[in-house]
Amino acid sequence: MNVLVINAGSSSVKYQLYNMNDESVLAKGRVERIGLDSAILTHEPEGKSEVREVSEILEHTTAIKKVLDMLVHREFGVLHSIKEIDAVGHRVVHGGEFFSTSVLVTEEVKKKIKHLFDLAPLHNPAHMLGINAVEANMGDVPQVVVFDTAFHQSMPPEAYMYAIPKIWYSKHKVRRYGFHGTSHQYVSERASRFLNKPLDSLKIVSAHIGNGASCAAILNGKSIDTSMGLTPLEGMMMGTRSGDLDPAVVTFAMGKEDLTLNEVNSMLNKHSGLQAISGLSSDMREITEAMDEGDKNAKLAFDMYAYRVRKYIGAYAAALNGIDILIFTAGVGENSVILRKAVCDGLTYLGVELDDHRNETGRGIEKRISSDSSAVDVLVIPTNEEWMIARDTYELVMM
Amino acid sequence: MNVLVINAGSSSVKYQLYNMNDESVLAKGRVERIGLDSAILTHEPEGKSEVREVSEILEHTTAIKKVLDMLVHREFGVLHSIKEIDAVGHRVVHGGEFFSTSVLVTEEVKKKIKHLFDLAPLHNPAHMLGINAVEANMGDVPQVVVFDTAFHQSMPPEAYMYAIPKIWYSKHKVRRYGFHGTSHQYVSERASRFLNKPLDSLKIVSAHIGNGASCAAILNGKSIDTSMGLTPLEGMMMGTRSGDLDPAVVTFAMGKEDLTLNEVNSMLNKHSGLQAISGLSSDMREITEAMDEGDKNAKLAFDMYAYRVRKYIGAYAAALNGIDILIFTAGVGENSVILRKAVCDGLTYLGVELDDHRNETGRGIEKRISSDSSAVDVLVIPTNEEWMIARDTYELVMM
Repeated sequence: MNVLVINAGSSSVKYQLYNMNDESVLAKGRVERIGLDSAILTHEPEGKSEVREVSEILEHTTAIKKVLDMLVHREFGVLHSIKEIDAVGHRVVHGGEFFSTSVLVTEEVKKKIKHLFDLAPLHNPAHMLGINAVEANMGDVPQVVVFDTAFHQSMPPEAYMYAIPKIWYSKHKVRRYGFHGTSHQYVSERASRFLNKPLDSLKIVSAHIGNGASCAAILNGKSIDTSMGLTPLEGMMMGTRSGDLDPAVVTFAMGKEDLTLNEVNSMLNKHSGLQAISGLSSDMREITEAMDEGDKNAKLAFDMYAYRVRKYIGAYAAALNGIDILIFTAGVGENSVILRKAVCDGLTYLGVELDDHRNETGRGIEKRISSDSSAVDVLVIPTNEEWMIARDTYELVMM
Repeated sequence: MNVLVINAGSSSVKYQLYNMNDESVLAKGRVERIGLDSAILTHEPEGKSEVREVSEILEHTTAIKKVLDMLVHREFGVLHSIKEIDAVGHRVVHGGEFFSTSVLVTEEVKKKIKHLFDLAPLHNPAHMLGINAVEANMGDVPQVVVFDTAFHQSMPPEAYMYAIPKIWYSKHKVRRYGFHGTSHQYVSERASRFLNKPLDSLKIVSAHIGNGASCAAILNGKSIDTSMGLTPLEGMMMGTRSGDLDPAVVTFAMGKEDLTLNEVNSMLNKHSGLQAISGLSSDMREITEAMDEGDKNAKLAFDMYAYRVRKYIGAYAAALNGIDILIFTAGVGENSVILRKAVCDGLTYLGVELDDHRNETGRGIEKRISSDSSAVDVLVIPTNEEWMIARDTYELVMM
């Protein structure tokens, strides 16, 4: 059985084709610059070389058609026929309070995803384009939606409610939703298997640190708190996002700089974080390189970043009343030796004992980086959201 | 030597007169409704009954004159002459980056307080009125200003910088300042004395929980982090303030409800917190009473409130890499047995062991409420900001 995983953005479609029998990736790729006459399809068939194709792709239906054509292409394809794709799984950012698990796409489900356009105006409409484009090209192939928010729907009200006028929640559904749920769920399951300890007996703090970053407190396999909120702006410092802030900064800056709502949102989401403090880059690799060369702004950006990761781990240790496993995942979490060290060196009060040698881990492998005597197992677990989407899709379609 | 402590608000003046020789309070009181023809002066001379006087008081100079008249009143006074007041100490909310300690008032100091009107538009102008009113009535009596922000000026940049566009800091001084500094400093000093342990060897988390609430991480007697930020809106949930929030909630709510900057600020500062969630009250006593009677909204408000206190303690334990002393102070912190229990019961991972009997503490006394075997000393320390202002004033004038 083959599952196609789709992540549709407003001007892009990423895809990954899995053979579920042996859990292998048959091909992956992306279409970029949808809407332009010079859109780019990059296709990576397993075991063959990468293909790039530039053409006019004005909307998502055409993009999906190009992808499917490529998958069955005589030279670059990996399938004989589109019929060999048994199901399609979509990443959907926002499931609101409707969805606490992945579901098969129905008219009712589509309606709910549309209801959530307000809460995820940049993402959910694009995902709908992806779903409709698959339908237009593949007819009644089973489709599944996997939500970034679903895993966090287990949070209790004291974690998800904001202390704001109640009508903002009752009328506009303003609350903490959290994101990266698929990743937090995946790495917590993998950690449990890696250590051979049952998930329902574990207190896990999972730090997904990529260009976006979030932390989750996971009790017995359920998310009980997470740092992103109504939107992915809240929480830890990120590549270009501010993370936590006095809410009064928003209005103060709007007043002083005469900013519109869109402008201040853009400043906080696209021109803040590592980028703003370093003045150099939103990329942790460039930050740490500049820091090594003595750049003070880069050093400050790194220190702020690491300090906030540490504080979230501390806060979630309190939320869980203890911590058995600390997981680092995603780009920075998996690759930045120095960040993991900066974070863990301030957590010895929890019994965290980093093994510096183990911390110099090779990329892409699951590994324990704490010492054998550490009270907390500190793990690096490469995340794999695409695989989770494929797995959920497979399971829902098979059932 | 006698010191008069003044806390001037926009329409009120609170005062307290200390005899510094024996550290006793000679009188205290307040003027309310300044600006109206029915302003109220409430005067409490030590050892005599309270006096209330209603009269027209249109501005602060008259208010201070009424206070001084009362202090030397034949019947209700405690002094023979105003000359017996050797110095006046003022509470000033915002000292910005100018002031890391209390200082004698000079023209230069006044200029700096005025520079900070932008950052504390509701408070600093009122404090200036108080300073000028004392000058108008008492000539060149030495005056001292004691800042809510000063104690927190020892925070390192990774704690006080927000990850926002740098110009907001360089041009508008947008950063974390923190407040309640006088209280956090006072209770940490008292805790050190109470336990007879040197302050410069202690990791203290101090939770000042009143109608406003803030938490501070205090390392070796210096504040290294605190939960209030640019303004007192950030941090823990409060009586009517939201505390922490996805910054995007501010713009989302403004857009949805078509709110102005002032309106959304007012919603978040005056119509949020315990008040909004309970729908009943901003007062923790009423919340816990309603909760005991089965009110679900009150229960949610309490749970959110306690949970956030707990998370801040956890975050600051991480900031300090451990915690020796946990202090509860201010109205709720000193008086709510149930809140302290809810918070501490989730901190056993830190070695916190509450002694339930000790926790049923009488009010107004310094007390250890943890068990003898607790790894963390949990203390209730009644705060006394007025005394700190008097002490700083005395020391600066005597030097």
